[in-house]
Formats: sequence, C-alpha cells, structure tokens
Amino acid sequence: MSSVIGVDIGGTKTAAAVVGPDGRLGRLHTAPTRAAAGPDAVLDGVRRLVADVRHEAARDGWGAPGAVGIATAGMVDTGSGVIAGANETFPGWPGTPVKARLTQDLGVAVTVLNDARAHAIGEAWAGAAAGVPSALVVAIGTGVGGAVVFDGQVLGGAHHAAGEMGHMPSAGAGELRCPCGRVGHLEAVACGPAIAEQFRFQDPGRPAGTPEVLRLADAGNENAVAVVRRAGTALGQAIAGVVTVVDPHVVVLGGGVAGASAVWWDAVCETLRTELVAPLRDIPVRLSTLGGNAPLIGAARSAWRVVAGADDLPNRGSREDQ
Amino acid sequence: MSSVIGVDIGGTKTAAAVVGPDGRLGRLHTAPTRAAAGPDAVLDGVRRLVADVRHEAARDGWGAPGAVGIATAGMVDTGSGVIAGANETFPGWPGTPVKARLTQDLGVAVTVLNDARAHAIGEAWAGAAAGVPSALVVAIGTGVGGAVVFDGQVLGGAHHAAGEMGHMPSAGAGELRCPCGRVGHLEAVACGPAIAEQFRFQDPGRPAGTPEVLRLADAGNENAVAVVRRAGTALGQAIAGVVTVVDPHVVVLGGGVAGASAVWWDAVCETLRTELVAPLRDIPVRLSTLGGNAPLIGAARSAWRVVAGADDLPNRGSREDQ
Repeated sequence: MSSVIGVDIGGTKTAAAVVGPDGRLGRLHTAPTRAAAGPDAVLDGVRRLVADVRHEAARDGWGAPGAVGIATAGMVDTGSGVIAGANETFPGWPGTPVKARLTQDLGVAVTVLNDARAHAIGEAWAGAAAGVPSALVVAIGTGVGGAVVFDGQVLGGAHHAAGEMGHMPSAGAGELRCPCGRVGHLEAVACGPAIAEQFRFQDPGRPAGTPEVLRLADAGNENAVAVVRRAGTALGQAIAGVVTVVDPHVVVLGGGVAGASAVWWDAVCETLRTELVAPLRDIPVRLSTLGGNAPLIGAARSAWRVVAGADDLPNRGSREDQ
Repeated sequence: MSSVIGVDIGGTKTAAAVVGPDGRLGRLHTAPTRAAAGPDAVLDGVRRLVADVRHEAARDGWGAPGAVGIATAGMVDTGSGVIAGANETFPGWPGTPVKARLTQDLGVAVTVLNDARAHAIGEAWAGAAAGVPSALVVAIGTGVGGAVVFDGQVLGGAHHAAGEMGHMPSAGAGELRCPCGRVGHLEAVACGPAIAEQFRFQDPGRPAGTPEVLRLADAGNENAVAVVRRAGTALGQAIAGVVTVVDPHVVVLGGGVAGASAVWWDAVCETLRTELVAPLRDIPVRLSTLGGNAPLIGAARSAWRVVAGADDLPNRGSREDQ
C-alpha cells in the first residue's frame, strides 16, 4: 500500500486527497458539504469525493489507497466512529455511525475523528509540531478549537470533549454570549465572527468581515486594534491557563484568524509572556504550517496507522486517533 | 518485600510511615521540616524518620521496606530525582539531588516526586479517584496545587510544571498579587492565606485565620461569606477551564480548605455547573478521602512501582512517578 485518503468534512465544504506515508498530498478535491440536507447527503458527498480521488490515484500511480481517514466537525467517539455531538450546522449528525457506514460502502478501513484533533495530529506529524514531544494546538476560525498532543497522541477525554478551549471561562469575554448559550466563554470574544461582530458594535457605520477587521487593525484603525487586541488577549489568557496546567513543549496557532494580523499575534504572545511563570514563559508559539489542509492530513495520519500499524510510523499509537 | 516507606516533606513538617501493597498505612512518624536550615538539614530529618519507621516496621512484622518514596514541595525532575524549583520556604532546595543522596544513604531504591502529584497519585490509588480512568486532583491549602492523572499516571509536562493551577490567570483574582509576583493568578484569591487576608481587608477589626473565616462563612457572617464565595467561585472557574480542556472523569478536591466550609464547596460546584457545557456539567466532584496523608501514600505508591514492577499493581506505569 503506498497511499491512504484523507477527508475533511467542514461546515461549508468537504475536501479529500490522497496522502503518502510521508504526509505528501495529492491534488485536493472539494465539494460543498450538504450539512443542512442531513447525514445521508453528507456521507454521499464523501463517497463521491473518495471515488474521484481513487480514480486519480490509480491514474497517477499512487496505488490503491489502503484506508480512508475522516476528520469531521463535532465530537466523535473515535473508537466506534459514531458522532457524539455537533452544532446546529449539522442537523441529525449526532448519532450517525460514520465509520460503520463508510467502511461498508468504501470497502476499506475507515477512521473518524474530530477536526480540531485531526488538525493537531496533522501538525504533530508533518507540520509545526513535528518532532516535538507535546503540543497545544489551537485553531481560531469560525470557532475556537484546540487539542493537546503527546507523542503524536491526542488527548481524548471522558466525554470525547478534551481540548474544547472555546468553552473555557474567559475574563475577557465579559458578558458576551457564547454559541453554546452560556455567558463569558472564550469563543464569545475570540473567534472570527466575534471579532467582526465586536467591530460592528464599535463602528456601526463600517460593517466588515473578520479578514477586513484584522487588516484594518494592522493598518492602525483604532477600533479594529481595540477589538483585535481584546480577542488576542482573551485567547492568550486562556492559552496561559492551559499551558500552566498541561506544560506542553510548544503552542501552535492555526485557523483563519491566526497569521492574518500582527496586532492579534502580538496580543496573544505578549499576554503569554505576562501571565506565565518563569519556567514556562519562553514557550515557543508557532504558526500552523499546514494551514487549511491540517485536518485532512491528520485524518490521513490516523488512516496510515490502521494500514501500517503504529510501530511502523515515527509517532506512537493513540487511544483517540484510530 | 511486604512494605515500602512513604515520606512527605512539607513546608512545616515531614511525615513518614510504612505502607503496604494495598495502601494500608503504619503509624505516622513526624518531625519539623528544617527547611530554612537548608537541604542537608531537610535530608537529615528524612533519614532519621526513615530509621524510626524501619525500626518499627521490623518490630511489627512488616518486613524490611523495599524502597522509599519521597513527596516534596517544589518542582521535581522525577527521572533524575533532582529538585527543579522551589519557593522561598526552601532556600537551596532547587538543584538538590534528593534521589541520588538518599539512595546512597538509605541503601534501597528511592523515588522523588512533587507533593501535589503525589497527592493525586495517592487519591487515584487508594482514595477518592480509585478505579476511575482519569481525574483532576486539586489541593487547596497554603497554595493551590493540582495534578491530572490518567490511568494512575500523572501528567508531567515539558518543564515538570504540569498541574500548577495556582498560576492560571483568574478573572476573580482581579489585581491581587500572586506569591510568584504576577498579578491576577488564581492562588492570589483562592489559597487559604488569601482567604484570611481578604477577610482582614473586609473586617480589619476582626483578624482571623483561614479555618475561622471558613467557619464564620458557614455561620452566616456576611463578610466571610463574600470572601469565601469569591475564593470558591474563582477556583470553580479555573477548574471549569481545566475540565473543558482535559475532560477528566472526576474532580477531587483536597487540602486544608476543601471540606472545611459548605459555603466554599457550594460556590465551587455551582460555578462548575454554570460554566461547563452540557456533556461535562455533571462531572462528579469529590472530597479527598486520604486527607493530609495523600502525598505520603502517593509517594509510597511510586516506591511500590519500583519494588513490584508496574504490571504487578492495578494501575499502569507513569513517566513521572518513578
């Protein structure tokens, strides 16, 4: 076997590609995720993409992919491959036996894991945390997700919920309401949409999306600087809390917000230096190197584990990623 | 071998006892810790206590203890058994090769670990977290310490600092200064001395120690209730953050403050229920069952691991406790 297929089921699009044993990626195939149409439509989209990728892999000499790794939004019971929870973007997704259904349809081994964890596994395998014994990987985009990786293993948790940093209590969030319904969680102040919303609140005459607010901050717009610094500071405080308790070797920041603004990056890093005790203060903070492909690559990694056996790959096995 | 010796080097006293393979404790021997006199005086105190315990163990038919497990204040490089950091109570303690010196003097295998971690290992072995796959154990006394245990293994960290919850940023701490010198850390609002100090600030006419403030709160004294609730709420928020990221099966609270006040306990638990997302909200919160003996028993557990080999005991081996 010289390849596997990685799939990333996101809220708006699904991506799939063939991935080699070294993390090398074939051409990316994408299609809209028909999440609102329900689980059958989502799984149908995956099957079509996998068929396309298989066709191309055969043509380009990758050999028949030996397994398929799926990263998906929502909490996943990785052992059974059943979705344990999801937000309202994916009606009916909780309870879907993704692993069982796709294993039958695709005729090869299938692994399923949460996308934030797949992101972290990808970075630990072939990205910004490669070769490091432990890492906290945080993805800041439409939400705030996280995962803790030890020796290539992702921390799972009693309820498959470990790493869900977005729902940490945050002093910086004040009375802002989180998508989960509670008040004062990190995501309410630090995710991409929160940045755009806070800017609209500051400057109602100038509606702007998150990327524009981040650009305006770097260009010196005062309202944008205030909003972006508030988001970065709140995230920095939450990361400081996690680093204090977990003491990882490195922090990796990814997702659409990370890397898009120097004002934001500096706020995060300054807060870490201010809050952390001396032995932890110089923890390296790195930008994701895999970008949007990280979850797909992490999913492929978990598929490789099934094909090759944990001992044939550089990192050790994981309770949660196979 | 039918016994080991557990030792707990605390800021004021050192305790030692013989411990059986089931966690059963012999009589406790204690002596003041001569921390201010330096490492030689501290180690000399340990040697004397171990000699007393050995004498008694022989007399009472425990058999010759096969190893000595040491729990100590400060950060410990458990592999080498060298102290990696300590506060000003223990001048000269950092850098002391405790394992090497005591192994030579005592003539048996010696293990050394941080006392908060020993506390957690003790509770996971023979206390409130026994039989549970993972736990967050928090000790609230003169400081706020914590440790995360998975399958009897304590989370170590890149700098031997994992679990140091006292230095998490805390909204509730406001501008209070932490013993580490930074502002707004959890310990500054939530540790025992902080409770007493805040009460003195509220009610300068009535100086009281921490136990009395906790009693006054339960008796309905308004100032005491406010101070104790503030401490419990800040701790609850920090624990909510850790539970969100680590997703343990149970939270265990120990140390002098835990269990001393219903007002405090309720504030911690109410905050957890308010802050945590639905899948985590019903996490069990348990009071330590080993009390002040937990670190000694945890230290004995790590000594048992050396004597018996990890596979002969119910829990699995740990990178950090042997």
